[in-house]
Amino acid sequence: MGIHTYFLSLNDLERIIRCPGKFKFEEHSVSAHSWKVVQYAKTLADIEESRGVAVDWKKLYEITSSHDYGEIFIGDIKTPVKHHSLELRAMLQKVEEGMVAHFIDEHIPEEFKPIFRRQLREGKDDSVEGKILEVADKLDQIYEAFAELRLGNLEKEFVVMYRNALIKIKEIKLHCVDYFFDSILPDLVQEGSKSPIDIEQITREALSS
Amino acid sequence: MGIHTYFLSLNDLERIIRCPGKFKFEEHSVSAHSWKVVQYAKTLADIEESRGVAVDWKKLYEITSSHDYGEIFIGDIKTPVKHHSLELRAMLQKVEEGMVAHFIDEHIPEEFKPIFRRQLREGKDDSVEGKILEVADKLDQIYEAFAELRLGNLEKEFVVMYRNALIKIKEIKLHCVDYFFDSILPDLVQEGSKSPIDIEQITREALSS
Amino acid sequence: MGIHTYFLSLNDLERIIRCPGKFKFEEHSVSAHSWKVVQYAKTLADIEESRGVAVDWKKLYEITSSHDYGEIFIGDIKTPVKHHSLELRAMLQKVEEGMVAHFIDEHIPEEFKPIFRRQLREGKDDSVEGKILEVADKLDQIYEAFAELRLGNLEKEFVVMYRNALIKIKEIKLHCVDYFFDSILPDLVQEGSKSPIDIEQITREALSS
Amino acid sequence: MGIHTYFLSLNDLERIIRCPGKFKFEEHSVSAHSWKVVQYAKTLADIEESRGVAVDWKKLYEITSSHDYGEIFIGDIKTPVKHHSLELRAMLQKVEEGMVAHFIDEHIPEEFKPIFRRQLREGKDDSVEGKILEVADKLDQIYEAFAELRLGNLEKEFVVMYRNALIKIKEIKLHCVDYFFDSILPDLVQEGSKSPIDIEQITREALSS
Amino acid sequence: MGIHTYFLSLNDLERIIRCPGKFKFEEHSVSAHSWKVVQYAKTLADIEESRGVAVDWKKLYEITSSHDYGEIFIGDIKTPVKHHSLELRAMLQKVEEGMVAHFIDEHIPEEFKPIFRRQLREGKDDSVEGKILEVADKLDQIYEAFAELRLGNLEKEFVVMYRNALIKIKEIKLHCVDYFFDSILPDLVQEGSKSPIDIEQITREALSS
Amino acid sequence: MGIHTYFLSLNDLERIIRCPGKFKFEEHSVSAHSWKVVQYAKTLADIEESRGVAVDWKKLYEITSSHDYGEIFIGDIKTPVKHHSLELRAMLQKVEEGMVAHFIDEHIPEEFKPIFRRQLREGKDDSVEGKILEVADKLDQIYEAFAELRLGNLEKEFVVMYRNALIKIKEIKLHCVDYFFDSILPDLVQEGSKSPIDIEQITREALSS
Repeated sequence: MGIHTYFLSLNDLERIIRCPGKFKFEEHSVSAHSWKVVQYAKTLADIEESRGVAVDWKKLYEITSSHDYGEIFIGDIKTPVKHHSLELRAMLQKVEEGMVAHFIDEHIPEEFKPIFRRQLREGKDDSVEGKILEVADKLDQIYEAFAELRLGNLEKEFVVMYRNALIKIKEIKLHCVDYFFDSILPDLVQEGSKSPIDIEQITREALSS
Repeated sequence: MGIHTYFLSLNDLERIIRCPGKFKFEEHSVSAHSWKVVQYAKTLADIEESRGVAVDWKKLYEITSSHDYGEIFIGDIKTPVKHHSLELRAMLQKVEEGMVAHFIDEHIPEEFKPIFRRQLREGKDDSVEGKILEVADKLDQIYEAFAELRLGNLEKEFVVMYRNALIKIKEIKLHCVDYFFDSILPDLVQEGSKSPIDIEQITREALSS
Repeated sequence: MGIHTYFLSLNDLERIIRCPGKFKFEEHSVSAHSWKVVQYAKTLADIEESRGVAVDWKKLYEITSSHDYGEIFIGDIKTPVKHHSLELRAMLQKVEEGMVAHFIDEHIPEEFKPIFRRQLREGKDDSVEGKILEVADKLDQIYEAFAELRLGNLEKEFVVMYRNALIKIKEIKLHCVDYFFDSILPDLVQEGSKSPIDIEQITREALSS
Repeated sequence: MGIHTYFLSLNDLERIIRCPGKFKFEEHSVSAHSWKVVQYAKTLADIEESRGVAVDWKKLYEITSSHDYGEIFIGDIKTPVKHHSLELRAMLQKVEEGMVAHFIDEHIPEEFKPIFRRQLREGKDDSVEGKILEVADKLDQIYEAFAELRLGNLEKEFVVMYRNALIKIKEIKLHCVDYFFDSILPDLVQEGSKSPIDIEQITREALSS
Repeated sequence: MGIHTYFLSLNDLERIIRCPGKFKFEEHSVSAHSWKVVQYAKTLADIEESRGVAVDWKKLYEITSSHDYGEIFIGDIKTPVKHHSLELRAMLQKVEEGMVAHFIDEHIPEEFKPIFRRQLREGKDDSVEGKILEVADKLDQIYEAFAELRLGNLEKEFVVMYRNALIKIKEIKLHCVDYFFDSILPDLVQEGSKSPIDIEQITREALSS
Repeated sequence: MGIHTYFLSLNDLERIIRCPGKFKFEEHSVSAHSWKVVQYAKTLADIEESRGVAVDWKKLYEITSSHDYGEIFIGDIKTPVKHHSLELRAMLQKVEEGMVAHFIDEHIPEEFKPIFRRQLREGKDDSVEGKILEVADKLDQIYEAFAELRLGNLEKEFVVMYRNALIKIKEIKLHCVDYFFDSILPDLVQEGSKSPIDIEQITREALSS
């Protein structure tokens, strides 16, 4: 069958839970995460535009909304596995891409095949839009980890998730990254100041690393 | 505070459940629904473009991704209430818009206020993008109802939800609506043919009404 | 249909969750809340009787057990909306009452219509029973908020909920209110003394406000 | 401590699930069940009164609202155990009563001890109120089982639960029981007529047994 | 029917939750608990063997894997009830054993009856294997309570559960118990050192009691 | 740290859900699945012994209880991926084994390293015990799929899961496999005879394939 099969498949991402068993206070489905990435990216792109940068909104729409669609086929493979070795990471990405390609070949009507191939590609390239997607994806890791840390989840995993996302964002050159460090992160740290975990110190360490 | 307050608020939509207590097989959060609307709209717009219609992707991005953001303030008010009377419907919309406006006034920095006012407005106008949003929103009602009907949920509510969404879509003039009735709906009906509920008949009745 | 439709509808309140997304440690359905209000009210009325006040137990039974039945039609509209403006509050109450009246007209047999109209009316009037209901309803907000605060939920919402309920109860003249402040609240504060949140201080501030 | 300990304990019944693992479509907490019993009993008593029978509302209030409070101490012991033998049933009841008595001795202030002893006694005696409680308790088993059977839950347990409750109600002489068989049960059977399980036949068998 | 009935029944233990309503951060089914007891016991027995003690692995397999099977019939009766009095405890054990015996009589084929009677007996005798089971069962109470205490659950129940399990293990003479106190417990206490609850002190008090 | 780290890690498998999003009626954690495999294997081995086959209970204990421990590191990778290609399957197994080896190197004390390496190896070899594990693992797929099919879950996935497991078991030469086909499967098919899905036909097709 055709587009129906694709539309029906979207439902499945609502029931794939990120990092199963780790979040104690707020669980996140892949579809909810995807929506938040779409939302962050929109505001980040607004900031770029307000600084005079041209944004290709069609491309941004395509790469943010579908950036985790491939997890329908391989689930949320635990992050430690993903980063265990460059070799493994490359292997897994090849597998995921192979399954997406197979899905398009089998289910998407001929006239839309090129469109789906473009939309379901890995979007984190060096374009403005690719970099915005990378920042938005990491931003959600920050907010997901923050929600756990703020309520006292002591699992080391969330400190690592929070810190690594900050470090990754720091390396990306965008006006919206400057805005994040100047005008968003301080409010977040302030909001977390009553937490039993010292979010300010974790933040400081990440920024100076 | 500023954009941080907005970003943090996105989390809340993950925990607002649509039509609480009615879905027996698959529950849906407002954020997961929002993501699926973004996805349907993208493919619907692709169909329009392939038929030569110009699409404003930035506008489409803005109105689809945020179309239910206001539910953060008023929750998922049961559909029967929404449609109980035109007067009530207008009252509730006024309340929701008032709270969104209040949120922007209080939390969004001056330079982004106009952007947020535009993004968080009601998007279902008569433009191509507004009509695509309307179709995408109803499409998700069809798929949500379908998932329940297929598994034998006998609550009348889902027959009504499925039928009304079909009738609403039928009234909208778009190439993608033709495509839906020609090439997507038949596959969906076919997929539901083993259900204890006669989805084909419900569909036929809706189409001929 | 008749009473059957009413009995069947009771089930729906089990699946309507209060303040969706806010409670991190213990969620509450409207039906569980309703039961606790019935229980508190019984003990509060026992205290009144022991001080020589006459209690109309039939009336108390009727107004406590059904006080949130109308939420079947409009769901748990977020408290901030309810209190956003007096105008809005009045509008929402009118809507809820209209839907309850419509339900009785359509489903309840003629001979029981007057009984249901009396039972499903707003019960918080100035009678002893109406005031006991108000205290019992607020008491449950105190216990619901307490359970979150005690475990370290830092959302401001629960401090507000706890404080406002205390302030509201303080204004009501009943022997059982005196008993609550003298003999129940001190035990509650004592029980919360190991919490990371300073429940004693929040309580003191509310009492002196 | 005193009444606070009792109020705090009410929360626990929200998290004790009836027949754990058996309900596939709608789970029920002991507190939600208790509230529904309070509601059914109110309407059943209204029917009695309308037929000229005097109802002691204070007693009815007391015995319906607290009739499963003892499950805080012993949980929801599976029904098969309860009825396994008369000897076992008596043993379990003795245990539950012992723990309730112990709780009152330890936590309830002197002046309220007699009240709590009366309220937390087994209420299903031969008075009108005791018989109404018995009917209301069984009515909820009927509605709980009905919700599962209607959606196709094939576990024999629910047929047994539904049938036994009907048989038990049939034996009780009350006007409201006549009303139930004449004016409520037919609507329920009608509502279940589209179920894959033949609810009408199960009902007929129970009534003629 | 035969073995099929037994195999099918195993599923039910996945949906019986231990201490319902008490665990706020991580709930445990009886089947998950049973698996962890199997795992702990395996390592404890490895330690015994490495110290030269002979282990009957078939017996250990039988008694650990099935040690809570009887809860299918009586549910997870709250621990306080179990230990309320020696008389009650004996009564409940008799009931559970009676129901297990009844199940074997009715469902297990003749040739396997003796095997099932042996496997489903109470396994905590004075043999090495019986003592390992006792330690493994208590170890899981320690880890279950630890997970709650570490995240700040202030319910006294978990301090009691943790302490009593430690005290019980201390009384058992096995090499693996020495190993636990020397090489496992210190790491656990260290891991809990950032908790808002003073796990080290609770541990010290239990050990010196 | 040492054995403590291993014991603590067992908890994580309670929160990894098998085939997330697919089971509509009964979800299964990896730990609950592991326990059921232990239970089936015990009875299967009893059957072998009763037919005169020698069983190494220590080995059986080791390989059944830990056969999915590696999923702590890579999660429940969707079955379709596992079987997508022999090359991919080999890659994933290598990754999982690498992470288990790494865990043992880093956390298990020197004296137990050989034991853990043996226990956490892939156990499905050609020995009696290895074959029993394979049958037990597939048996649980049959029972998991059966529970969904019986209640009317129409997802093709469960028909495939049920059929493939039957076909796989059929190929294994063991007395207990004969017993399963002669004395267990017929009861299961009989139990499923009222299902809206024709379980008997699916079974017949699998057996004749």
